[in-house]
Amino acid sequence: MATDEFDIIRRHFNRAELAFDRAGVTLGIGDDCALVTPQSGMALAMSMDLLQEGVHFLPGADPYLLGQRTLLVNLSDLAAMGAEPLCFTLGLGLCAQPDAWLERFSEGLAAVAAAHNCPLVGGDLIASGPGGATTVCIQVQGQVPVEAAIRRGGANAGDLVFVTGTLGDAAAGLRVLKGECRETGDESRQHHQFLADAFFVPQSRVAAGIVLRGQATAAIDISDGLVSDLGHILQASGRGAVIELENLPLSPAFRACIESDGQMSLAVAGGDDYELCFTAPADNRDAIEASLAAIDVPLRCIGRIEQVPGLRWTLQNKPVLLKAEGYNHFRPNRSDNAENS
Amino acid sequence: MATDEFDIIRRHFNRAELAFDRAGVTLGIGDDCALVTPQSGMALAMSMDLLQEGVHFLPGADPYLLGQRTLLVNLSDLAAMGAEPLCFTLGLGLCAQPDAWLERFSEGLAAVAAAHNCPLVGGDLIASGPGGATTVCIQVQGQVPVEAAIRRGGANAGDLVFVTGTLGDAAAGLRVLKGECRETGDESRQHHQFLADAFFVPQSRVAAGIVLRGQATAAIDISDGLVSDLGHILQASGRGAVIELENLPLSPAFRACIESDGQMSLAVAGGDDYELCFTAPADNRDAIEASLAAIDVPLRCIGRIEQVPGLRWTLQNKPVLLKAEGYNHFRPNRSDNAENS
Repeated sequence: MATDEFDIIRRHFNRAELAFDRAGVTLGIGDDCALVTPQSGMALAMSMDLLQEGVHFLPGADPYLLGQRTLLVNLSDLAAMGAEPLCFTLGLGLCAQPDAWLERFSEGLAAVAAAHNCPLVGGDLIASGPGGATTVCIQVQGQVPVEAAIRRGGANAGDLVFVTGTLGDAAAGLRVLKGECRETGDESRQHHQFLADAFFVPQSRVAAGIVLRGQATAAIDISDGLVSDLGHILQASGRGAVIELENLPLSPAFRACIESDGQMSLAVAGGDDYELCFTAPADNRDAIEASLAAIDVPLRCIGRIEQVPGLRWTLQNKPVLLKAEGYNHFRPNRSDNAENS
Repeated sequence: MATDEFDIIRRHFNRAELAFDRAGVTLGIGDDCALVTPQSGMALAMSMDLLQEGVHFLPGADPYLLGQRTLLVNLSDLAAMGAEPLCFTLGLGLCAQPDAWLERFSEGLAAVAAAHNCPLVGGDLIASGPGGATTVCIQVQGQVPVEAAIRRGGANAGDLVFVTGTLGDAAAGLRVLKGECRETGDESRQHHQFLADAFFVPQSRVAAGIVLRGQATAAIDISDGLVSDLGHILQASGRGAVIELENLPLSPAFRACIESDGQMSLAVAGGDDYELCFTAPADNRDAIEASLAAIDVPLRCIGRIEQVPGLRWTLQNKPVLLKAEGYNHFRPNRSDNAENS
């Protein structure tokens, strides 16, 4: 392990692949503060995530995938606001990781940073104490026209409810990673790989979020499961929703690997999807479908907003009950979520 | 301990004393992102600190003092840039703290937040894993006119070197807290209290930083000790300095409690001062002294910048050698610094 924090920063973090120049970033790593100047008329959007080994990722997790994933899940919050990524800061608590770990971790960060033009501009590096856990804190900064930011509280009765991509893949991927899904041949192996990838490399919906400015009335990214996150939209908007279970977008891999009577609850409550859930007036549907198709983002309408609060489910137009709950960090949860993030 | 993260946030963090309204803060706690809009012509300045129990604070530390101190040391980075505090975000990893702990911690934060008009606008709350340590990550956001931000790299040969306040008190306070200083009576008890306070409640030099815009050529806050932090200014500026040891500002409590042959090295390398060290042309000296006196900030000129790189010391105009090193998180240090931050 390198023995000098400034040396670690210089070699692994303050390097061209990760701490690159970008319009709007006036000053990056190396001073008391970073300086960021959003474009005129833009607000700065910011979101922070704190992740700990043993809670959000397994000891021995691939550092490249860890770096990639931690930045991607943060960018997902910018996407849900309709904000364009500008830069990020990183707080890192290390437990005597070897240089090779830092190298791979920063490469994973750099891959995502480059793809989103979102350089590292500062942060803090500490050595965790004896028995301490590796800790990663990331804050992303983005910019969005003040009036166009998509908040959670704007859903109206009659709005349609949409989700991007497919649901439940990451939760199923976590089962695969824990060895809970039996591999039965080549096709099953491919499915398992697809699901594990969904956990480690969530799709980034940043481009979709920007397209939805002015079109969506409310949006959130699905981190704790559809039930929990759509629930936040409903609560903030003072509305309810009915969701048509037959319209939930499920991947072939998910259908093949999860027993059919557990599919619905895992898809709506599994978490870690990092897809967008948003609401929009029916009149905007065609425009939204066209613009998301243009950037290759799969989209599904799964229900509608109603005046009466509460989340209701139907299957082929008949009301059904679905026992499902999102992840809560301070409440004992189903074993599915023991390693949730 | 409360069992619901949203409940903890609502009761202890998203409350009027801490998450109050402020001009420039467009959206606070409760959405995917917070939204901040700096004034026209202003850059957003940001700085992050990651702190862990057992590394930066002792297990059993008073949660009120901890809350106060963690926010103050972050604001110190804004001060060193000449930035005005706008808001902060908080990542908190908890280890089954009781409600009373959270209450006092958030009260400590609120006291500093109110004093600096710097509300909490978001963050992340997690339950640390088994054996995990309490973790606090704070990022402060401030605003500063882009051209007036005081960087580290602007010191010129001939500039004077200044520090605010007194040096070494916090490092001496840490010795007091560890029981390494013998109490010998009422006066000694008062000195010890003064030094412990210097550690727990560092002076905030935010107002001084704002006054220094356009006057100082370079600035830094002293977190790792004068040697280390002035060293950053010298390195960034490509210059050297000569410091007159007889001019180091030492408090009466410091002089009384630290044996005289250890005073200089503790004052220049002890760390945790969170005073400002800055450079300015001699022509600005009168104006700077007057404006800092007007806001009751003690100021001392301790030396000057020279063309030749390196940090040199004099005592009564004679060169002296001083063995002193700043704190480094990844290098075994003197025992003075075992609990440094």
